[in-house]
Amino acid sequence: MCVFCDIATGDVSAHVVHSDELTLAFLDFRPLFPGHTLLIPRDHVETLADLPEDMLAPFFASARLLSRAMEEVMGAEGSFVAMNNRVSQSVPHLHAHVVPRRRKDGLRGFFWPRTKYESDEAMAEVATTLREGVARMKTGL
Amino acid sequence: MCVFCDIATGDVSAHVVHSDELTLAFLDFRPLFPGHTLLIPRDHVETLADLPEDMLAPFFASARLLSRAMEEVMGAEGSFVAMNNRVSQSVPHLHAHVVPRRRKDGLRGFFWPRTKYESDEAMAEVATTLREGVARMKTGL
Repeated sequence: MCVFCDIATGDVSAHVVHSDELTLAFLDFRPLFPGHTLLIPRDHVETLADLPEDMLAPFFASARLLSRAMEEVMGAEGSFVAMNNRVSQSVPHLHAHVVPRRRKDGLRGFFWPRTKYESDEAMAEVATTLREGVARMKTGL
Repeated sequence: MCVFCDIATGDVSAHVVHSDELTLAFLDFRPLFPGHTLLIPRDHVETLADLPEDMLAPFFASARLLSRAMEEVMGAEGSFVAMNNRVSQSVPHLHAHVVPRRRKDGLRGFFWPRTKYESDEAMAEVATTLREGVARMKTGL
């Protein structure tokens, strides 16, 4: 039912870049640049929010390895590592994009129009809402 | 010397969203959308590649918490979690952007022009280069 689960089991073929017990990485077939890799946890979870505690280190150790490889193996000057959760997420199986970057490579990346807060008070209000909400989430209230 | 280190010590003020022993999160002052948060490890490392092994779980546990908060606290439909390493990295202190997303919010995100490999052989060649390079990195050769 999930194409990334099928890639994890080998039922769907992919150009595998890295494989270990808990994670798998393969080339995106519509890359931003050659070498653009998708990293998934082998077990199905939908978003980063759903990634189990004991998968944090294994999953992001693989992301770190791949980000290093973009420079060391692909000769990139840097890397872009990103996850879309729900919105803009084409396959609902958590995947981190790891993309080789070069200066002036034309990737707009974060150069979307930025906005600004109306005032420092407006910014403080958003911060307070988030901070209090996060604190409630941490204590399970 | 590093503005994010100064924020971590409190020498430079910021609108803090989350704080724990090892990580700190605060609002980006030029957000993509209100609530756009930057998460940093308190100790200075430049990129994801430099993040120590024992920081993987703490750093990404905070990223996961913030991505959940975008939905639960900010009422977002999803989130975008991204790191620019070297290229497009405005401050050379590792930071993950955690951005609330809504459908049709206008964020181009990954909708840059995608390319494609010239052929399956060309794609296989890139995969082989990366896979062999990653394997060498893993074994320290």
